[in-house]
Amino acid sequence: MKIALDAMGGDFAPEAVVEGAILAAETLKDEVQIILIGQEDLIHPLLQKHGYTGSRIKVVHASQVIEMGEHPTKALTQKPDSSIAVGYGMLASKKADAFCSAGNTGAMLVGAVFSVKQVEGILRPALASFIPKLSGGYGIMLDVGAIADCKPEILDQFGLIGSLYAQYVFNIDKPRVGLMNLGEEEGKGTMLTQPTHKLLKENKHIHFIGNIEGRDLFNDKADVIVCDGFTGNVILKMAESIFDIIHEKKITDPFFDRFNYEAVGGSPILGVNGNAIIGHGVSTPTAICNMVHLANRMAEAKIAERLKKSFSAR
Amino acid sequence: MKIALDAMGGDFAPEAVVEGAILAAETLKDEVQIILIGQEDLIHPLLQKHGYTGSRIKVVHASQVIEMGEHPTKALTQKPDSSIAVGYGMLASKKADAFCSAGNTGAMLVGAVFSVKQVEGILRPALASFIPKLSGGYGIMLDVGAIADCKPEILDQFGLIGSLYAQYVFNIDKPRVGLMNLGEEEGKGTMLTQPTHKLLKENKHIHFIGNIEGRDLFNDKADVIVCDGFTGNVILKMAESIFDIIHEKKITDPFFDRFNYEAVGGSPILGVNGNAIIGHGVSTPTAICNMVHLANRMAEAKIAERLKKSFSAR
Repeated sequence: MKIALDAMGGDFAPEAVVEGAILAAETLKDEVQIILIGQEDLIHPLLQKHGYTGSRIKVVHASQVIEMGEHPTKALTQKPDSSIAVGYGMLASKKADAFCSAGNTGAMLVGAVFSVKQVEGILRPALASFIPKLSGGYGIMLDVGAIADCKPEILDQFGLIGSLYAQYVFNIDKPRVGLMNLGEEEGKGTMLTQPTHKLLKENKHIHFIGNIEGRDLFNDKADVIVCDGFTGNVILKMAESIFDIIHEKKITDPFFDRFNYEAVGGSPILGVNGNAIIGHGVSTPTAICNMVHLANRMAEAKIAERLKKSFSAR
Repeated sequence: MKIALDAMGGDFAPEAVVEGAILAAETLKDEVQIILIGQEDLIHPLLQKHGYTGSRIKVVHASQVIEMGEHPTKALTQKPDSSIAVGYGMLASKKADAFCSAGNTGAMLVGAVFSVKQVEGILRPALASFIPKLSGGYGIMLDVGAIADCKPEILDQFGLIGSLYAQYVFNIDKPRVGLMNLGEEEGKGTMLTQPTHKLLKENKHIHFIGNIEGRDLFNDKADVIVCDGFTGNVILKMAESIFDIIHEKKITDPFFDRFNYEAVGGSPILGVNGNAIIGHGVSTPTAICNMVHLANRMAEAKIAERLKKSFSAR
C-alpha cells in the first residue's frame, strides 16, 4: 500500500507533515509506504533532524507549492509541478493508492476532479466528515462544503456514497441513513429536503430511516447523515468550536475529545476514482499521522473502487 | 404591564405553567400583572395548592385547548375559545402587552399573523433565539424555524429586525449583524447567502460586519446572526443537544449552563404587531418564569412598536 502525502500542505508544513509522516511510519503496518511529495531540499533535512533512517518514507520531488489563498483552478493550471498536482498525478497513474494533503481545500477538490475524475454516474463528489457518536464510533456526514447549492438527486446519491463508506470502512452491516431536516415528520422541510426525502425513501440501495434533526447529530440514530454542503459546513465548524471551547476550559471528557479534528485526521473526497483526503489547515503532526491512517483504511477498503462498482451497476 | 400566559401550553401544563407564573409573580416588579389563560377549574386549584393568594395573577377562562400535534390553521379555526386564540385576542385588543405560550409552535406562529397581523412592510415574521456568548451576554439569531425557505429580501429584513431587538432589549448601541455562511470571504456562499450578503452590505440601517461561520456562533463577532429558518433550526437543536450532553455528563460550567433553554425562556416572534413568545414544549416552571420575564422585557422595550415605527418609515 502506497500513501502519497503532500509535504507542503498546511499552515505548519513542511515541519508538521514530516513529523506526522514519521509518526505514521512508526505505527502503520510494515507493507505501507508513505510518499512525501514536495521540495526535497526542505524535506530531507527535516527527516534527518528527526533521526528518521527507515525505508518506509520515500520522497518525491515537486518544485512548486500551491499556497492557501490561491485560486484553485488557476493554481493547478499554472503550477503543474506543485505537490498537489504531482500527488494527484501519482494517484491517477496508480503509483499511489491514496493521496492526502492539509493544503488548499479548493485545489484538492478541483484537482481530484481534474486528475482521477468523477466516478461515472456520480453527479458531484462530496466532502465527508466524521461525527463522534455518544455510544462510541463515528457517523459519516456528507456534504460538508464541496457543494453549497445541492439538488435532491445529488443528496440522494450522498445517501448511497455514505452508506458504502460506512459499510466498507466502518464495517457497519446495514448503515442507517438519516436526512438532516428541521423536523422528524415526513412532510417537514425545505424545497430541497422535501423532495430529497422522497428520493431517499424510494432508494432501494440504502437503509433510509427518515429525517433527523440537529439534536440527533451525536446520538445513535443514523450512521450516515445526508445534508447539503452549506448545512454540513456550518455544523462541522460549530462542532469544532465546541471542542475548542471545551479544550480551552480544560474540561476533559472522552466523548468531547473525539470532536478533535486531530483524532479524525481529515475529510475524504468521495465520488472520484481515487482515495483522496483533505486535512485541516492547522494540522499538527498527530493530525497528519491520523490522516495517513485514514487514507490507509480507505485504500484497504478500496472505497473508490466500491463506489465505481456500485454506481456503474446502476 | 400585563403579560398573558397560556396556562394550557406545554407538555407539563397546566401544572408547570401555574408554578412558573407564581415564580414570575414573586420576582417581577409590582406593576406587572400575569394573566393565566385556560380552564379555570384546573388553574384555580393549582394556585390554591401552591398557596398563592396574591392579586398579581389573574385567570381568564378559555374552554378549549389546542394540542401539540394539531394542525395550526385548522385548530385555530375550530377552537376559537382555545387558550391560544383567547391569548392572541387579548394581545390584539391591547388587553395584554405580551402573550406567551409553551404550546403548539405552529398555532402560535399562525395565530400571531391571524390576530395581531404582520407589521406593514415586513415580508415574513421571524422566530428568534438567543445564543450565549463566551464573553457574556447573548446574541440574537433569526430565523430559527418560522420560514424554512427564505429569500434574500427576507433575510435582509431579519438583519434590521434583529438589530432593533439587540438595540432596545439588549441595549447594544450599534449591534453588529453577521450573516451565517460557509466562509468569511465576501464571494462565498449559496444562491441564497450570496445575494443576501449584497443586500445586507447595502442596508444603511444596520451595522453589517459580513459573513460569519459556524465557529463564530459563540464568540463575540456578531450581536445579530442572520440565517434561514432551516439553518437556524439545525444550529439551535444542535446547541440544545450539546447542553443536554454536558448536563448528563454532570459537567458544570457557567458558559454551557447558559445554553439551557430554561435560562432563555423562549423564542420571540418578531415582525408582528404585538409581543409574542413561544416556549419550549418541555418547559419547566423555571422556563415559564423566565419566559414571562422575557415577555416583560420585550413589552417594556416596546419592541413590536419599534419594529412598526422603523418599517413604516421606509
